[in-house]
Amino acid sequence: MATRRFRASEPELDLLYGSFAERSLQPLWELSGLLTPEPRVQGLPHRWPGRELRELGSRAGDLVPVDRGGDRRVLACCNPGLGGAPYAVSTLWAAVQYLRGHEVAPAHRHTPAALRFVVEGEGVWTLVDGDPLHMGAGDLVLTPSWTFHEHHNPGDRPMIWMDVLDLPVVAALDAVFFEEGPSEEADTRTAPRSASEGWYAGAPGLVPVDGPALPAHRSPLLAYRWADTDRALGALLRTTGAGHAALRYTDPVRGGDVLPTMRCEITRTCAGAATGLQRQTGGRVLCVLHGTGTVRIGDERFPAEPGDILAVPSWSPWSVEAGEQMDVFSTSDAPVLEALGLMRTQDLSAAGAAARTGAGR
Amino acid sequence: MATRRFRASEPELDLLYGSFAERSLQPLWELSGLLTPEPRVQGLPHRWPGRELRELGSRAGDLVPVDRGGDRRVLACCNPGLGGAPYAVSTLWAAVQYLRGHEVAPAHRHTPAALRFVVEGEGVWTLVDGDPLHMGAGDLVLTPSWTFHEHHNPGDRPMIWMDVLDLPVVAALDAVFFEEGPSEEADTRTAPRSASEGWYAGAPGLVPVDGPALPAHRSPLLAYRWADTDRALGALLRTTGAGHAALRYTDPVRGGDVLPTMRCEITRTCAGAATGLQRQTGGRVLCVLHGTGTVRIGDERFPAEPGDILAVPSWSPWSVEAGEQMDVFSTSDAPVLEALGLMRTQDLSAAGAAARTGAGR
Amino acid sequence: MATRRFRASEPELDLLYGSFAERSLQPLWELSGLLTPEPRVQGLPHRWPGRELRELGSRAGDLVPVDRGGDRRVLACCNPGLGGAPYAVSTLWAAVQYLRGHEVAPAHRHTPAALRFVVEGEGVWTLVDGDPLHMGAGDLVLTPSWTFHEHHNPGDRPMIWMDVLDLPVVAALDAVFFEEGPSEEADTRTAPRSASEGWYAGAPGLVPVDGPALPAHRSPLLAYRWADTDRALGALLRTTGAGHAALRYTDPVRGGDVLPTMRCEITRTCAGAATGLQRQTGGRVLCVLHGTGTVRIGDERFPAEPGDILAVPSWSPWSVEAGEQMDVFSTSDAPVLEALGLMRTQDLSAAGAAARTGAGR
Amino acid sequence: MATRRFRASEPELDLLYGSFAERSLQPLWELSGLLTPEPRVQGLPHRWPGRELRELGSRAGDLVPVDRGGDRRVLACCNPGLGGAPYAVSTLWAAVQYLRGHEVAPAHRHTPAALRFVVEGEGVWTLVDGDPLHMGAGDLVLTPSWTFHEHHNPGDRPMIWMDVLDLPVVAALDAVFFEEGPSEEADTRTAPRSASEGWYAGAPGLVPVDGPALPAHRSPLLAYRWADTDRALGALLRTTGAGHAALRYTDPVRGGDVLPTMRCEITRTCAGAATGLQRQTGGRVLCVLHGTGTVRIGDERFPAEPGDILAVPSWSPWSVEAGEQMDVFSTSDAPVLEALGLMRTQDLSAAGAAARTGAGR
Repeated sequence: MATRRFRASEPELDLLYGSFAERSLQPLWELSGLLTPEPRVQGLPHRWPGRELRELGSRAGDLVPVDRGGDRRVLACCNPGLGGAPYAVSTLWAAVQYLRGHEVAPAHRHTPAALRFVVEGEGVWTLVDGDPLHMGAGDLVLTPSWTFHEHHNPGDRPMIWMDVLDLPVVAALDAVFFEEGPSEEADTRTAPRSASEGWYAGAPGLVPVDGPALPAHRSPLLAYRWADTDRALGALLRTTGAGHAALRYTDPVRGGDVLPTMRCEITRTCAGAATGLQRQTGGRVLCVLHGTGTVRIGDERFPAEPGDILAVPSWSPWSVEAGEQMDVFSTSDAPVLEALGLMRTQDLSAAGAAARTGAGR
Repeated sequence: MATRRFRASEPELDLLYGSFAERSLQPLWELSGLLTPEPRVQGLPHRWPGRELRELGSRAGDLVPVDRGGDRRVLACCNPGLGGAPYAVSTLWAAVQYLRGHEVAPAHRHTPAALRFVVEGEGVWTLVDGDPLHMGAGDLVLTPSWTFHEHHNPGDRPMIWMDVLDLPVVAALDAVFFEEGPSEEADTRTAPRSASEGWYAGAPGLVPVDGPALPAHRSPLLAYRWADTDRALGALLRTTGAGHAALRYTDPVRGGDVLPTMRCEITRTCAGAATGLQRQTGGRVLCVLHGTGTVRIGDERFPAEPGDILAVPSWSPWSVEAGEQMDVFSTSDAPVLEALGLMRTQDLSAAGAAARTGAGR
Repeated sequence: MATRRFRASEPELDLLYGSFAERSLQPLWELSGLLTPEPRVQGLPHRWPGRELRELGSRAGDLVPVDRGGDRRVLACCNPGLGGAPYAVSTLWAAVQYLRGHEVAPAHRHTPAALRFVVEGEGVWTLVDGDPLHMGAGDLVLTPSWTFHEHHNPGDRPMIWMDVLDLPVVAALDAVFFEEGPSEEADTRTAPRSASEGWYAGAPGLVPVDGPALPAHRSPLLAYRWADTDRALGALLRTTGAGHAALRYTDPVRGGDVLPTMRCEITRTCAGAATGLQRQTGGRVLCVLHGTGTVRIGDERFPAEPGDILAVPSWSPWSVEAGEQMDVFSTSDAPVLEALGLMRTQDLSAAGAAARTGAGR
Repeated sequence: MATRRFRASEPELDLLYGSFAERSLQPLWELSGLLTPEPRVQGLPHRWPGRELRELGSRAGDLVPVDRGGDRRVLACCNPGLGGAPYAVSTLWAAVQYLRGHEVAPAHRHTPAALRFVVEGEGVWTLVDGDPLHMGAGDLVLTPSWTFHEHHNPGDRPMIWMDVLDLPVVAALDAVFFEEGPSEEADTRTAPRSASEGWYAGAPGLVPVDGPALPAHRSPLLAYRWADTDRALGALLRTTGAGHAALRYTDPVRGGDVLPTMRCEITRTCAGAATGLQRQTGGRVLCVLHGTGTVRIGDERFPAEPGDILAVPSWSPWSVEAGEQMDVFSTSDAPVLEALGLMRTQDLSAAGAAARTGAGR
């Protein structure tokens, strides 16, 4: 920016600036960094190794109880670029939650929506507004905004899983509400199948004619089972004939994302293959379910193993390069960016580069 | 209507009416039956027994060849109330189609959309814009508006199935277009799984991230398999805890009906149970897949067996009473009525009667 | 179509055909004309001269009373190609209605929707669910499906206007309901401005924050005034810089057509200019408001004057060639065709021909 | 919250916490304030008096030039509760912009969307993607996301107006892009009417049949004129019969808010009347156009005059009490809250209190 030649002497300016400050005003011309050619992203590419998350979860399980109070035994992934904020990227909370055998986490609800993704183990039940959802490896379980949810582990073995919340977005909008459940005790019900799945997980494209009233703003299906996901990934991979295939988790009745704030996807990459390098506005959290390989984010290349959580900041190019076949789960804030007309994507692969004409949009 | 006292003598009126006729005008006050308190439906409740349809289909197979010319070996169900029009109800064409072993019906396309529902047998392949879809008992196969479609039967055994088309609606709108396929010969491809299913039949709520561009106005999934439908009906029945359960076939990506003109549903009714008596505007065609019982339509009660096709005219109450467990497939024009703001439904069961306050809407 | 060589002797075939007839079946291969390369439209291009409509309306006013009974003093335009059906095109009823001074037409409602377009005169009030709407030249007034409506003419002078209804469509769907109003007498209220306009005709893009609940399936605004339309046509013509400009009447709150079954548009064509020749599926009724010129429909060229009603059958090319500046109002069934995925348009002007590659879609 | 009894000694815990910190993890049970019963809003109710804004704008005009560099002569309203951030509420930037006679502010574009609202004066032209929009008192002018915009003041008199931007939201989503226009010079075109208005400001509910392709995510109409707004407010006030009336600025073609991130409304309150006390999630900025009175926000009561800008933080009750008749313009982030399923409203007036059952949702 060229030097500005003021029409005023410094004392005059000082006086004016003093008046601004007194009146809670700031001159735009003294501000910088507000409008940048590209997003000035503070979050950094980062990897939280699965092995460490499991080990620290287990140690916390030994030393720290699960108590009443809205809290859970949860370790939040804190992006090193975000100045201590407990967020994996600027718009997403990601964490691991650890529940020992016979522990319970009683019910509460909050406007931030949460999802649970399980990398290994099974046996915990999450009740969503009273509907008992079993959790096992590869399952995605939703606890949408303002639904009561609680967890209980009736077995002897501890269990760990990943939580992702849209908390940073809801907090930035000053819209956080929280309420404890009606009881100090967790509901320890189980059921062969959740009601949600009984109604909505029948078959692709088949929905009940007279089902319950559909909830606004989110999927009525609350659990997506690994057996289904695995089969669908296999079928899709055979259909595309490419080295990778990606599925989006959606509302089975109305289409669209499972939650108004978070998009969930899973990508299978064949051994030796890689996904195309691409970037988009908005943050993303990856979680490796199966396989090992390399995840490239921005200028960094991270080795990846099951249980790893990785942060992909806004506008950072990323891809997955599979050593052995990899399944990688992804959560992004894409529905927010799309709803607000702010989604911008760029394909940086060779194919994309050929097609591009220079502009990112 | 009270007798109208004209201000004019008869000769004056005759002169006026003559002028109207010369100018292609008609006086509203001499017309009757245009605006009736309830729909004046000409179609009648009717049943075409499955046994007769199979037998006559087979005899036609012996005597009549399948030739080039847009025609198929098809017997159209002609509602006795419709004055000879080849329609099952005033808005739907229903028919059986019979294809002998090694026969082919080459490609054509038309703006009326069609669906195929199979009651028994298997082995015919329908290609929709080149995608080979195997047909077997309980399957629903779509050939949407303006898609090329052709059938071939590579095996030795004949096969029969039901066709339903929205032809009366498209014809009433003067919007019928027809085109023969590029070849005199049917394409006899087969495939382990149609591309349509490879992309869209993975699992409930899981859709491809980078799939083909979605077709406007209809489902991208073209086949709904009986194994899936059967499993989904069973799960739904266990969930509802009622004596019957109904599923709607929908677009698995965007939700909504499979076609813009026809709604497809299937109802399973447990032995000894019955669906609620109800009526709605618009026509409906039923096809019994499994089981025997009674189908009540208006004032008639029809015995029902597999393969039966039944006509439910607009605003006629209907229900299914199952002797043994019954699966009944249904096609209606409900998407048309709903899109135009003309859907009106009435629950005539005991439960509905209690809730009703007199008005049908 | 090639001659079909049957495998059967005639007696065998006769026997089979007899069986078909007994069972209410028809063989497709003996039917013809069901699936045609282009729409087989029975309606013909036609013009009902405004002068005759006014004259015959006036004579009916002298000779025929307006009575209770759902009827009005209405002359229906009967397309000569439609075999005596009282429809202007196969999907639209068009008529003139004539009300003498101090006459009233009491309230009724029906599922077919109606619209009124006024070519000349003023002074009649139409009440829609009790909201009094004044009618004057150039105004469009809506009486949507199932709204009570009544007309009264408090002045001394008679008034004539055009009615258009979607009756053929609603009747084809067996969805006609009719109900007389609560009183034998018309409500003769007047008001400086209808409530509908008070809420929704403030200014383009400005809508009430806390207005009444919006009706489903149609515009909450029931009258579109000529002063507004005239000004908007003028502004649009200056903006486009072309010799003609067309406006669509829409729901001012949610966008989209004013009714789910009928699209309303108005075109101003400058003296000596012409609209592009085009065709589309579905029927259309034109009404000349101002100016004289020629309306070309299919192979016919009709001289046109104020008050003329013209029928444009499905898939017939049409254009307006203005001698002096013309304003032509148009109603079509386009929302129906679009909702059902059946709209097909073709630009046959020189510009369109250059762009076309042969196919109409 | 009850005191947590740890199972571990302090050295063990210290060791564990140290491991967390090393691995960029934070234990949820040591965090507080994340999930609060109601939003923990940092922004405060605040008023920036119009008189001061005009005076300081004018002094800045004397002392500070307008230069190339993405900057404008703009004073940002800084909410005293937001720790120095230049935002009026946590989700909205509000500011006054001052342009002296014969000054120009050349073109740039950015993903944050802006709107301009004029309290007094006239004569500046804002070009949006080259379309010249004159600005005068009471006008709302939009410069949507990623549209080039520039201002020029061809007259001798300075002009001041309010800018509101969604910058905090776009920045929180790491989606800020910025680009300077192709020229160092402002385009100084003027026109009798903007093209945007020529196409879309004809009349309520009348839209062009063949207009330009509609922009995604926002209104194609870029200026809402005071003459129209004033007339619409008057008509609405007569229709409601209440002491106040509120209009929303919307997309005249498709309905919905003018921008995907900001809702614009204007309320007229009659002398001596007051709007209902209410609150909702999300932030709001008020700007007084006409009249004097009191604006109540939270526990504060601010005297209000033309030109005042006021901050209404999320979930703060607010109302306008008019001394003389007041017109108050409002911008909120409601479209964001609604799109994400986070809108919660509460009517705190006597009427609302009677209807309420305790819960805010």
